[in-house]
Amino acid sequence: MKDFKTYYAVIFTSTQKENITGYAEMALKMENLAKQQPGYLGMDSAREDVGITVSYWESIEAIKNWKQQSEHLKAQLKGRTYWYSWYNVKICKVEREYEFNN
Amino acid sequence: MKDFKTYYAVIFTSTQKENITGYAEMALKMENLAKQQPGYLGMDSAREDVGITVSYWESIEAIKNWKQQSEHLKAQLKGRTYWYSWYNVKICKVEREYEFNN
Repeated sequence: MKDFKTYYAVIFTSTQKENITGYAEMALKMENLAKQQPGYLGMDSAREDVGITVSYWESIEAIKNWKQQSEHLKAQLKGRTYWYSWYNVKICKVEREYEFNN
Repeated sequence: MKDFKTYYAVIFTSTQKENITGYAEMALKMENLAKQQPGYLGMDSAREDVGITVSYWESIEAIKNWKQQSEHLKAQLKGRTYWYSWYNVKICKVEREYEFNN
């Protein structure tokens, strides 16, 4: 068993409205902004019927700070107003992890 | 703050090989099998450059039992042999959750 440092994952699942003008630019802007945020570790993202974005963070505090970041707050409001018909956010503690590499 | 019952999420991220013959059938079979597994709560899935499947479970024991389920073990072996170039599995405790519904 290798040494494992606990970290956190935010699982963001969403469905979008038909007209999502401006969304792609904002998503890219937020991804670049998150990268500058203290405690940010990385992100995975894919969308088919549902969109799933999982971001990884060093601590709950880092997640809270990102949630309250001023530009991100504006983006969240735009998301609720224009782009998302539904979303769900799960804050998770990553307890173990393993990987396969062929 | 509403009452929140802790549960678990398995974040499975993967990249696939070019030839994934047989994968779609197996993925569907495993999804149907997981639904019959004790402690299974649900699943979200999407694939673009990376595939993300998040499954939700009542307990760590339920996750362990599913990992060791005999048909699932065969599917895992096929996955490593034929379909996946890489995958990563994160076992997570969901600590809080919120939702937006427009």
